[in-house]
Amino acid sequence: MAGMTPEAAFIAALRGIASHPAARGLADDCAVLELGRETLILTHDMMVEGVHWLAGQDPADVAWKLLATNLSDLAAKGAEPIGVLLGYTLAEDNNRFIEGLGEALAHFGVPLLGGDTVRSPGAQTVGLTALGRATCQPVPSRSGAQAGNTVWITGPVGAAMLGFEALTCGNTSADTSAYRRPTPRLAEGCALAPLVTAMMDVSDGLLLDASRMAEASNVTIALDPARIPVPVGLPKDRLRDAISWGDDYELLFTLPVEAAPPCPAHCIGSVLPAGEAPLLLDGAAPYGQLGYEHR
Amino acid sequence: MAGMTPEAAFIAALRGIASHPAARGLADDCAVLELGRETLILTHDMMVEGVHWLAGQDPADVAWKLLATNLSDLAAKGAEPIGVLLGYTLAEDNNRFIEGLGEALAHFGVPLLGGDTVRSPGAQTVGLTALGRATCQPVPSRSGAQAGNTVWITGPVGAAMLGFEALTCGNTSADTSAYRRPTPRLAEGCALAPLVTAMMDVSDGLLLDASRMAEASNVTIALDPARIPVPVGLPKDRLRDAISWGDDYELLFTLPVEAAPPCPAHCIGSVLPAGEAPLLLDGAAPYGQLGYEHR
Repeated sequence: MAGMTPEAAFIAALRGIASHPAARGLADDCAVLELGRETLILTHDMMVEGVHWLAGQDPADVAWKLLATNLSDLAAKGAEPIGVLLGYTLAEDNNRFIEGLGEALAHFGVPLLGGDTVRSPGAQTVGLTALGRATCQPVPSRSGAQAGNTVWITGPVGAAMLGFEALTCGNTSADTSAYRRPTPRLAEGCALAPLVTAMMDVSDGLLLDASRMAEASNVTIALDPARIPVPVGLPKDRLRDAISWGDDYELLFTLPVEAAPPCPAHCIGSVLPAGEAPLLLDGAAPYGQLGYEHR
Repeated sequence: MAGMTPEAAFIAALRGIASHPAARGLADDCAVLELGRETLILTHDMMVEGVHWLAGQDPADVAWKLLATNLSDLAAKGAEPIGVLLGYTLAEDNNRFIEGLGEALAHFGVPLLGGDTVRSPGAQTVGLTALGRATCQPVPSRSGAQAGNTVWITGPVGAAMLGFEALTCGNTSADTSAYRRPTPRLAEGCALAPLVTAMMDVSDGLLLDASRMAEASNVTIALDPARIPVPVGLPKDRLRDAISWGDDYELLFTLPVEAAPPCPAHCIGSVLPAGEAPLLLDGAAPYGQLGYEHR
């Protein structure tokens, strides 16, 4: 495991004990579990103070984002949320977290089913398990992209980055909601699931996540930077930053060339047979860091 | 919420946003969710370094205990485990955790389905979500104990306390496995579920958990200290400590007076109509702290 980040090494080691097919080799956004006549979709994401959110950020936004990021994993499977379980280490003031969680649960129509609350001497750590029900079979995966497919994204990337930057430099007039309160593309995921050959949410940066999809599918994905949607007002020289930044939670998907998406989306590239690099940007393998690699 | 611990206050506030019947008012060990023809049982428990395990303890034991405590919640519902999702903050050395988790999953025959791994600057925090399938209807709860029932426990309380004490004072010749590697009573839970009027696992101490069962059932539970099983070698003057200590993970349950348990168990008391105190020990309300109250 030389050269791996500690997180990547841990996940690689975990794969050795996650042999059940529902685990999908720990290489997908969710577990996919057949249960009677239903197909359950399961995901668990954690967030840590100072790592996944800024110290001093409104805990109501933290709660919203915790729910939204987990629901985004369900969206990538075309799943309808069933409910969530919360893991929570207590902070000094917990009221704003509860308010934000209640607001987000009501907004997305998802019930809180249970969880656990503990004391911790360290940084606050929150986790959420989301359960969903697959709305179509087969359940989309990252690994189905095929040469000849088109590559699409449901919306712009970079808005979360701009929001983060406005928050950290104290620009209170800027709209920071894309960073603080992302929107999981649940309706889009359900609409797309019957059509896509591969789908995932863009949580760690478009370049990195597209590269992961390409590797899982054993293809090369060629992106056309001129067609990648970005937020209004993004400086032109920040495109590369925007496509390497995470937290946007749009859906990235591939379609047969003749298919058109049933929801607003942008065609940003095409799938090629596996070449030397999993990812091409404007025809060349992109240099440098592709995204949020478990920093 | 005056007088409440911060954890109790948080849970009380969470109840306000957990109105779905599957959440059981956040007052039970698990969520109980009807899904097609199946009844899913869901639980999520967390553990924090220095709070739920001793700094320096073998991470393989931490992994075992994390799985065992969650499976114990399923046992209390008479559920068969389906699988688990792991939430894990990285430590310096993660190999022993993976080894212990693999060993425990194999031992209990439970698949790892997914999870998340994150960096954290603080104390290590681990969480596990366990999913199970109910084996009988209605699914046992804490709240069904009825006056006239008998009160039972599947095994001794106090062994985990003795193990903890041996570990903390460096007594390497003592058997500390009850503390390090508890055994969830899965088979017993399934066998008992069709017969019990109420059932829960004893995780926070017999007195405290019996008191919670009594309050949930709106009865008084009278325990006979002379009949409470304790480990061989427990000094006689430590009975009160043993029944106030947690971590034993035996099942506490109530039966109609004519019923006999289908597995080894000890009758330790009886259920009375609700009196002034939810719990009587040798005929009197016990003084002092009853158990592990979210310290």
